[in-house]
Parts: sequence; structure tokens; C-alpha cells
Amino acid sequence: MDQNPESAAERVGRTLFAERGMYRLTMLREMDPGFASLFEAWCYGGLYDRGVLDDRVRELCAVAALIPVNRPTVIETHLKAALRCGATRQEVLEVIFQSAVYAGMPDCLATLDQFKRLDDAGEFAGLGPSYGG
Amino acid sequence: MDQNPESAAERVGRTLFAERGMYRLTMLREMDPGFASLFEAWCYGGLYDRGVLDDRVRELCAVAALIPVNRPTVIETHLKAALRCGATRQEVLEVIFQSAVYAGMPDCLATLDQFKRLDDAGEFAGLGPSYGG
Amino acid sequence: MDQNPESAAERVGRTLFAERGMYRLTMLREMDPGFASLFEAWCYGGLYDRGVLDDRVRELCAVAALIPVNRPTVIETHLKAALRCGATRQEVLEVIFQSAVYAGMPDCLATLDQFKRLDDAGEFAGLGPSYGG
Amino acid sequence: MDQNPESAAERVGRTLFAERGMYRLTMLREMDPGFASLFEAWCYGGLYDRGVLDDRVRELCAVAALIPVNRPTVIETHLKAALRCGATRQEVLEVIFQSAVYAGMPDCLATLDQFKRLDDAGEFAGLGPSYGG
Amino acid sequence: MDQNPESAAERVGRTLFAERGMYRLTMLREMDPGFASLFEAWCYGGLYDRGVLDDRVRELCAVAALIPVNRPTVIETHLKAALRCGATRQEVLEVIFQSAVYAGMPDCLATLDQFKRLDDAGEFAGLGPSYGG
Amino acid sequence: MDQNPESAAERVGRTLFAERGMYRLTMLREMDPGFASLFEAWCYGGLYDRGVLDDRVRELCAVAALIPVNRPTVIETHLKAALRCGATRQEVLEVIFQSAVYAGMPDCLATLDQFKRLDDAGEFAGLGPSYGG
Repeated sequence: MDQNPESAAERVGRTLFAERGMYRLTMLREMDPGFASLFEAWCYGGLYDRGVLDDRVRELCAVAALIPVNRPTVIETHLKAALRCGATRQEVLEVIFQSAVYAGMPDCLATLDQFKRLDDAGEFAGLGPSYGG
Repeated sequence: MDQNPESAAERVGRTLFAERGMYRLTMLREMDPGFASLFEAWCYGGLYDRGVLDDRVRELCAVAALIPVNRPTVIETHLKAALRCGATRQEVLEVIFQSAVYAGMPDCLATLDQFKRLDDAGEFAGLGPSYGG
Repeated sequence: MDQNPESAAERVGRTLFAERGMYRLTMLREMDPGFASLFEAWCYGGLYDRGVLDDRVRELCAVAALIPVNRPTVIETHLKAALRCGATRQEVLEVIFQSAVYAGMPDCLATLDQFKRLDDAGEFAGLGPSYGG
Repeated sequence: MDQNPESAAERVGRTLFAERGMYRLTMLREMDPGFASLFEAWCYGGLYDRGVLDDRVRELCAVAALIPVNRPTVIETHLKAALRCGATRQEVLEVIFQSAVYAGMPDCLATLDQFKRLDDAGEFAGLGPSYGG
Repeated sequence: MDQNPESAAERVGRTLFAERGMYRLTMLREMDPGFASLFEAWCYGGLYDRGVLDDRVRELCAVAALIPVNRPTVIETHLKAALRCGATRQEVLEVIFQSAVYAGMPDCLATLDQFKRLDDAGEFAGLGPSYGG
Repeated sequence: MDQNPESAAERVGRTLFAERGMYRLTMLREMDPGFASLFEAWCYGGLYDRGVLDDRVRELCAVAALIPVNRPTVIETHLKAALRCGATRQEVLEVIFQSAVYAGMPDCLATLDQFKRLDDAGEFAGLGPSYGG
């Protein structure tokens, strides 16, 4: 990933998801270079880089979409990305609150519990306007 | 619903969802007034009326959240509400495109098919900036 | 199904689900007798015939379990079975109302819409205490 | 929560869910008082307090509804609540067994594994007729 | 799509999914050329064209994966593709039968009902070894 | 399980799932012998023993079906069974890659993470052609 100019997928991975994004690219390239290429062209370098929605709105929608998916490491990545893209703590919480209507109370409460654990552990420090970012 | 001043739930139902919102309030009141009161205080008059996110962003997030839920009449209501709240056709489509990552291609394609059927049938006429609204 | 004594699966199919239950047994036997035997021993003649929970409670739990499953013909069968087993209209509706907490409002509202369509069409006539059964 | 008379939500939270219920109320009030009020009026003080179904049946249905939701801390709360409301160990297990039909074997087995872990750890002691409650 | 040489996505769309595949490519290109390009590189021309699993096994796995997704037009496309790729009627039915364990009986039965409707309507004629294909 | 001849369910449990399969049989028999009998006749001794699909294909389909089910201990059992039945590492990974289309990227990535954890921990040693089995 070094002497070559940064690819679109690498730029998006680094900008939106920081270490987590770079880990994902490396992990997939080591596991299966062909699938990694498809992933990069489709996801980080594709849908995440279209610019139709600004990143703050796109990531708030990602949080909304990911709550029912119930994959904690994936939604953690996007909770942080939403903050990193300028969403406030209150806006991210609001998307989780609204999920009580769409996905049900258990999905809402479990996601609030996860948000609180991350927040209490200082995992959001430096991310976005609510966390001195 | 006539001589009394409009409640918050009625105002939200009418503003965001038009006839569909008023139908829902009437249908629930006839079915079970106690449950209707809980619904109105929780949903239309509660979470949909908090104002933390502006309605355009909140409804784009609702579309994102509803794609995996797979209830066509409910997402139709919110596709229209998103347009009515100022989201453009391209922004609503973009939220559906992004769902191919989060919820999978079948949910994305089935929602695009539904969007196209509604669009082709003129169901979005007058709703928001893309449809002369 | 005629000259042989009725099997446990046939008795349960007939008692709980009437024509729908008999249709299911016939349809599976014609499609694949081996799978039909497994189905009968597992489901109608197995789990549905254990008697640990009385049928009214078991069928109310079935309705609760089936709301998020989103298969309209299957939940229709169990809405009717719950009424047939002695649950009142108000009890069945209550299970659907409670689903707004567990499964979310769209699942609740879509199931209420289905219940109302069946009720308005007279499909519940003769089933249980609320419908002259 | 001290010098004021107990609210309906507090009574339900305490009665059905004990410490877990009180924790949830406190946690939500600290996180967002407005959302906490909506939650209390909708859920603990609302749907959980209607009395149409007796609490034993309502909580057995809650267990049935929560198995496919796959949120372990939430279903743990309701497994205990079902026992606390008078359901026997065998009745709660039966609802989990039945889920093998509706939600599939993996949801059934994973919930049985969770039940067994809680049971082996003595977490059900004092709850309901099967546990000396 | 005419004077240009056929792309990988077009070849896969035509070979696996026939008219349905060509419709999908055209529909997406008209709706949003940028998203259509991402779709073609990711899906038809990407994951569906890797050749690690032979198409018969890959499409049987697709049917298995799509049963819980509950999108009838999408699974119809893959039921036909599995037959077109050489799976027998009995093999496709077997994958649906097995889903009763993994996804639950309602998903299995609803998919069997859909398979039977398509079969009775002659929709599988000419597809694969069991249908004179 | 000792002096009696091995039942079909015991043979399948041992052959496909090794210690995990035997644990499951024992655990269910201790918990509820009646449910254990139904499980054995339906699942290990029933659907898993029909022979319509060879075990390698059946287990690859099982992995495909289990990815969206999101029950880690259950899919671990079937990841190992697929390898034990002769699927290669690359074939099992391919089924997981394909799930990015059907179930979405979060389910795919979370399952890849689980596969990598098991692989790195040596959990697949001795299983099938890719692991010296």
C-alpha cells in the first residue's frame, strides 16, 4: 500500500473508517485478492464514494440501516464514521431512538447499550463536533 | 377529528403522510382506542415530532431502516414522506442503492422495483423538488 | 387418507387448521412423501401435539412468533387457529399490538392490516368465542 | 425516583424486571429524558400495563417474539420475567422448543443454550413456581 | 447493447437468467448508469463469474441463501437459474426442504408454495434435466 | 448411548459434527427426552440423512443458509462440517463471499472474521482436503 498512489478505496477507508478501514482492506487482500478487488470497487471505492448524499447524511442512514443487521463490529465502525463525518452525538443517538419504531425496542436498546459502552470507554474521543474532533 | 384543535399526532400524520397518515389514525382509533392513544403519543406525536433531525434527514434514515423490514405499504408511505420533506428523487434512490451493501442486493432490487412502479404510476407527482412539489 | 384410522398429524391438522391443514398434508405428500413424513412427525404430529402448553396459549405464542417471519399465508393459518382454540378477538389483537415493541411498528401495522382484511371479509366467522364459534 | 409516588412505568419495571427494569429506566433518563418519557409511556407504562392478556401469557408471547430478534440481554430479561409471572420452567422451555418450527433450529438451539447457561448459573433462583419463587 | 461485444455482465445475465437478466441490466442502466456499472462489476460480471464453485452448486447455495430473504421475484430468478445450470427438480426441492431446519417451517412452506405455483404454471419448462432442458 | 447399536441420528451427529454433534444429542436428551426424540427424527436422523444432495453440497448450502441467521456457534458447526465433508477452504470462503450479494456486506464480513478467527486458532486442523484431513 506504500509507494503506489492511494486508490479511491484506500482514501475512503482511511478517511471514513481510519485504522479499521485500513485493517479491512489488508485483511481482505491477504485472504483473497480477487474478492478484495471486487469489494474495493463496489464498496469503499464505489458506493461510499459517489457523493450524491454528503457523508454525514450517508453515514446516519448507514447507522439506521445497520441497527437491524445486528453485527456489532460493523455498526461500531459506522457509529464512529458518522461522528467523524460531522454528525453530533445527539444526532447519532436520535437515529438509534427512531429505530425503536422501525426495528423494534430490542434492537434500539441493544444499540444504545453498545453506544454507551463505547462512549464510556472513550472510544469516540476526538470524533466530530461533540467529542472535540 | 373535526371540531377539536388538531393534535400533534394529527398534524404530523397530515403533514408527513397526507391521506395515508389520516387513514392510519382513523383505522387504529376504530380498532382499539387505547392502542391508538399509545401509538399517537409514541410515534406520530412522539418520535416523529422531536425535531432533533430535520424531517428530510429523518425520513431518508427511515427509508434506510425500512428497506430490510420488507413491508411494502409502510415503506411506500415513507418514500413519499421523504420526497414530501424535500429529499430529491436522486437522494431517495441513493439511499436505496446504498442498501445493497447493508441489506443485500435482493432488498435493494426489490425496493428499486417498487420505487419504479410507484414512479411510473405517477404516485410521486407533486411531492418535493424533483416532482414539481 | 380415508380407510386408515386418522393419524396424529391428520387429527391436529384437521382440528387446528381445518381445510388449510388438510391441504398442507395432501400437498406435501404429493410433492415428496419422505419429506411429508418428516413434517408430520415433527410438526403437526410432533411439536403441535405435546400438550405442555394448552392450544390457546400455544397458538397465541405462534402468532407472536410469526409476526416477524412475514409470511402472510402462514400467519393467516395461525390467526384462525388461535381463534379456533378459544382466544378472543381482543387477545389476538393484543398479541399483534405487543409486537410493535418487539418487532417494530411496521410488522405490527402490516399484521393489523391483514387481520382487518380477514375480519372485514368474514374469514373469522364461526371461529371461537368472539365470532360465534 | 425517591420521594415521588411510583409511576406506572416504575411499578411495571420493578415488578416484571426487578433490578434490570430499574436500571433501564435510570439509564434512559440519564441518556435522554425526552426519549425516556416516550419509552415509559409507550412500553413499561403503556403496552406492558394494559391487562388484556395476563402477565404470564403476555411474557410467554414475549419470549416467542424475542427468540428471532437475537438480542441476548433483552430475551434474558423476558425469560426471567416469564418465570417471575408464574410460568413454569417447562412452559418457558416449550415456547423455545416451538420456535424450532417458526424461527428455525439455530434460533431454538442458541436460545436453549442461553437458557441452560442462565439456569446452570443459578440466575433463575427464586423466580416462579419451578425455582422456589 | 448491440454492436458492442458482449460484456462479462451481459454474458452472465443472459446465460444464467435469460430475459430476466437482460431486463435487470437495462432497467438499472436507465435508472442510474453509475449504479448500473457498479452492479455489473460487482454482481453479474464479478461474484457470479468467479468460477470457484461450479454454477450448479453456486446457484443451489443462492437458493439456500435467498429463502430467508423473502423477496419472491429474486428467488424466482435463482430457482430458474439453478435448474438452468443443471440442478434437478429434486435437488432444488431438497434445498428448500433443508431450509425448514435453518430458516424455519414458514419460510420453507412459502417457498414450496411458490415453487409449486411456478411449476404448475409451466414456468420451468425447458430448464435443465428435469424439465426437458 | 453405549450398548445400544448406534442410531441414525447418532451416526450423523458423529460423522458430520464430531464432538459437537454428540454434545448436542446429550444436551437435548438431558433437557427434554421428548423434544430430543423429535429433534433426532427430524434433523440429524431425518433431513440430514436423506442423501438427495451429497453431504459436501448440502453443507455448503447449509453455510449459505446460516450466514443470515447470525448464530455463531451454529455456523461454526457447519463451517467445520463442510470442510469435513470434502469442501475445500476456498469453496467455503466462496460461499461466504457470495453472501455479500444475498445477505449484505455486514453478514459477509462478520462471517469472514469468524472464519479467520477459527482458522488462525487452528480449529480447522485435520478437516478436509485443505487442512490435511
